[in-house]
Amino acid sequence: MSKKIVVIGGSAAGPKAAARAKRLDPGAEVTIIQKAPEMSMASCGYPYFVGGLFNNRNALLSTPYGEVRDPHFFVNTKGIKARTETEVMSIDRQRRTVQCRDLTSDALDEVPYDKLIIATGARARKPPLPGIDLDGVTTLQSMRDADFLRRIRDEGAIKKAVVIGGGLIGIETCEALQLSGIDITVIEMLPQILMFLDWELAKVLENHVRSKAANVITDVKLAGFIGENGRLTAVRLENGTELPCELAVLAIGVAPNTDLAQAAGLEIGTTGGILVDEYMQTSDPDIYAVGDCVELVHRITGKKTRAPFGDLANLEGRVAGENAVLGNSVTFPGTFHTGICKVFDFNAGSTGLSESRARQEGFENIVTVINASLDKPEFMGAKLLISKMVVDGTTGRILGLQCAGPGDVGKQISMAAVALLGKLKVADVVNADLPYAPPFSLAIDHFIATAHLMENKLKGLLKGIGAVELKEKLDKGETPFLLDVRTPGEYDMMRLGIGETLIPIGDLRHRMDDLPSDKNREIICYCKISLRGYEAAILLEAEGWENVKVLEGGVMAWPYRREK
Amino acid sequence: MSKKIVVIGGSAAGPKAAARAKRLDPGAEVTIIQKAPEMSMASCGYPYFVGGLFNNRNALLSTPYGEVRDPHFFVNTKGIKARTETEVMSIDRQRRTVQCRDLTSDALDEVPYDKLIIATGARARKPPLPGIDLDGVTTLQSMRDADFLRRIRDEGAIKKAVVIGGGLIGIETCEALQLSGIDITVIEMLPQILMFLDWELAKVLENHVRSKAANVITDVKLAGFIGENGRLTAVRLENGTELPCELAVLAIGVAPNTDLAQAAGLEIGTTGGILVDEYMQTSDPDIYAVGDCVELVHRITGKKTRAPFGDLANLEGRVAGENAVLGNSVTFPGTFHTGICKVFDFNAGSTGLSESRARQEGFENIVTVINASLDKPEFMGAKLLISKMVVDGTTGRILGLQCAGPGDVGKQISMAAVALLGKLKVADVVNADLPYAPPFSLAIDHFIATAHLMENKLKGLLKGIGAVELKEKLDKGETPFLLDVRTPGEYDMMRLGIGETLIPIGDLRHRMDDLPSDKNREIICYCKISLRGYEAAILLEAEGWENVKVLEGGVMAWPYRREK
Repeated sequence: MSKKIVVIGGSAAGPKAAARAKRLDPGAEVTIIQKAPEMSMASCGYPYFVGGLFNNRNALLSTPYGEVRDPHFFVNTKGIKARTETEVMSIDRQRRTVQCRDLTSDALDEVPYDKLIIATGARARKPPLPGIDLDGVTTLQSMRDADFLRRIRDEGAIKKAVVIGGGLIGIETCEALQLSGIDITVIEMLPQILMFLDWELAKVLENHVRSKAANVITDVKLAGFIGENGRLTAVRLENGTELPCELAVLAIGVAPNTDLAQAAGLEIGTTGGILVDEYMQTSDPDIYAVGDCVELVHRITGKKTRAPFGDLANLEGRVAGENAVLGNSVTFPGTFHTGICKVFDFNAGSTGLSESRARQEGFENIVTVINASLDKPEFMGAKLLISKMVVDGTTGRILGLQCAGPGDVGKQISMAAVALLGKLKVADVVNADLPYAPPFSLAIDHFIATAHLMENKLKGLLKGIGAVELKEKLDKGETPFLLDVRTPGEYDMMRLGIGETLIPIGDLRHRMDDLPSDKNREIICYCKISLRGYEAAILLEAEGWENVKVLEGGVMAWPYRREK
Repeated sequence: MSKKIVVIGGSAAGPKAAARAKRLDPGAEVTIIQKAPEMSMASCGYPYFVGGLFNNRNALLSTPYGEVRDPHFFVNTKGIKARTETEVMSIDRQRRTVQCRDLTSDALDEVPYDKLIIATGARARKPPLPGIDLDGVTTLQSMRDADFLRRIRDEGAIKKAVVIGGGLIGIETCEALQLSGIDITVIEMLPQILMFLDWELAKVLENHVRSKAANVITDVKLAGFIGENGRLTAVRLENGTELPCELAVLAIGVAPNTDLAQAAGLEIGTTGGILVDEYMQTSDPDIYAVGDCVELVHRITGKKTRAPFGDLANLEGRVAGENAVLGNSVTFPGTFHTGICKVFDFNAGSTGLSESRARQEGFENIVTVINASLDKPEFMGAKLLISKMVVDGTTGRILGLQCAGPGDVGKQISMAAVALLGKLKVADVVNADLPYAPPFSLAIDHFIATAHLMENKLKGLLKGIGAVELKEKLDKGETPFLLDVRTPGEYDMMRLGIGETLIPIGDLRHRMDDLPSDKNREIICYCKISLRGYEAAILLEAEGWENVKVLEGGVMAWPYRREK
């Protein structure tokens, strides 16, 4: 008799699990039950549809060759039965059935399963604040949300909006609405946007968002929404400020949809996601769970975590689909929390642990370095990259890499993600054999250059100082000798204005008299990206100064307000 | 007393070695002796200067912040003495000196060393053929060559040129000259261009080069050059053909400059490069050698090989510089033969072993797969990638990846290069946590998708057939049932025309009667990139056909002439 596989959820993880199961057991009866009218939505593409990067809504719902992934597609191409606009009301684990309701007719029925795969996803958090139900308060989570915001773009009536939450989706939404000609304010209750980055990199992006005429307010809490005649007129902050707006988009994270699983008595993990083992199997051996509704293992810390990413959802689905029909045979190893997003003309990504995350996790000997350099030669149209590498100083193992800037961030994070997969150490990367030609990279790729700086730091050859540490020193009234070694032309165009002395690197050797006579005085060297800053430090050390540091990332990675 | 470090060669590996030595031993006297008038030339950028992608010649000789790397720069910024237009005539290992000649004054002198670093590079091969010395016969190896070819571009007088050699530099030169409005023919004595790729991928690029109005002739041997009044008028092939032209660029590879080393009695390796150990140390413990003049270890085969790449030269220099001043402390692990180049609107790259190379190396259970897919979603401006993964079927270890197409080849090869570094297996990559967002990749990145196909093949779930194998079948008169499952519209625009039957994937389930009644008949399914071809194969197998294969890479990876 053919095996009955039922999949609850038809977005990303569900259809992938269904397809894999059917592929491995062509005789299986595979059914997907989906609450929404659409299936296999490319939900990560919503902000780009809203922002008008493309206009064909069907592109979000189609295969690469343009066929809409609807129930007809699933049955014709894959032999999978798909029911949309059907809600699963409950799971009867004893009888191995799910109870469904057709949302258009209200008809009830029961579907039997041999193996069940739960892919119920997550829902956007909506805190119970005053005014949360006003017209104009929305999220960007469903296709309906995307349609709503796209209509706002097309109608052009709304002038001011507030995005609540400066995470990945908040920032993508900010860009989409700003491109639609709407005046945007992003509010974030934490001290920074994009929490997958450490503060100083997040600040660089925050400054970029501001340069695009979108306002960003950090360290503020949302108090509620104010309206007139049921329509939103302003967002109110806890500090009393009111931000007038006709639209507010909540992007304060997602919560796993575990109601069904919980009601069925499945175990829920400590992070709030459905508990699964490495086979993506729940506490009931006949039930698997995948996608945004589960919790995963973090591949560095070994701890449970949630990682609601579309790419992982697909991979988890593939694993669960295989195990559901073949018995537990393949495993899903977990997540490095790899993520990336476009932020106007910049990109920002991360894999593994940030410095602050590594500290929270209890790593004791954390070494970090910031490297700002170009992604390819100047003459090939170079763009800047700013990377921060986080390493376990005891073992040399790379724990994480963050990267931001207008350059090719995707390649940097991709390489780092594969390096984490291979548990590579800094010493492995310093002599990596990467593809080099001028259209693609520098002779020493930014990734290797970052590892070189780290190696120098681990060997005590580079004494770096981060912008945050320097700023703290200055705020405490310390007076290190600050040495900017760029040219006067560069200085005129852009400068920190923190009491620095300008001596171009080429003149330095002849202008030693302009440096502190006290050889123990702390000197901090920098340039645009601290390449010349590093050269200067070497030179000063060779001349006997004992306490020379390099400001990591130079002017380009300075997260504070510059004099110019 | 300060240590004397002498470096012979001032292009890539030499200056890097010098800088690293000086950095680690600021008291050392470091001298670079360079024959050419320029130093630290970005020689990989020559084709883009010749092709007019940029016009500022100094960009090839400058730091990222625009300072020309001349002897003044080296002494001022790095405290390194650099002598240009100075040739080292010999090395006296007994007395530890090098004998130099100033090429402008002819003055001779002797420079003592404690440690010597040889970075004499390689020279373009020029076979002793008739007419080789005619005006108009050149190479693209030196700054002088680049200046010569750039002048040709600027003057616009030359109409026809022949590039001899279809390797990386040959193809880059072809593009540069074609962009200069010159009629180009590339001749290659082997059956394919770009030998770092397997034949079928190289053919895809060859077809692309032809589509850019540059002619490519493979399988032909150069006989010599014909001229009038000392000027080139044609290139003559061994088959008697004469190709009229006013310019011929030899790009048939480089030979390591080992004369000095050999005369000094240093050991030369089996591949013709200077023999060095993992410390980059030659057979004389006081002499190191780096860059294009040495031979390296291949990191997969463990055999000696040459890898004249600018990126490796820099990394080797860094290792030798450190060992020269600190004693042997760091090692250079060798090469994966990673390379990449731009070929008009396509890119092509490779890391590790190609299938043909793996066979030559004696691997017995080689499994390959070709994956053609997009680099990001269609709605974000997707471009095609065609990858071929080579795996050791016994262990599952990835041996190599090649990738070609208009898409983001650099990222694919970069990830694969890091995967090789980590000795990753296919099973490691199938669940990689890569950075995903629509502007950067598909939800399942092309690299993971390639690994998925490979995993399916290793598990016997995908029976693929390569274009070469299919073509051989057809040429032998075999008649597999060829099933194109694209839409009629796609078929009208582009098709193989090899006797195929068109049944769109969505109709297949209802048109089983149009398929062979013999369930053992060989059926080969395909579509544009064989994603739907794969779906079709699954469906036919589920319906009982026993011998179903997928044409890997589909229409897009078909290397032969299409009907349309």
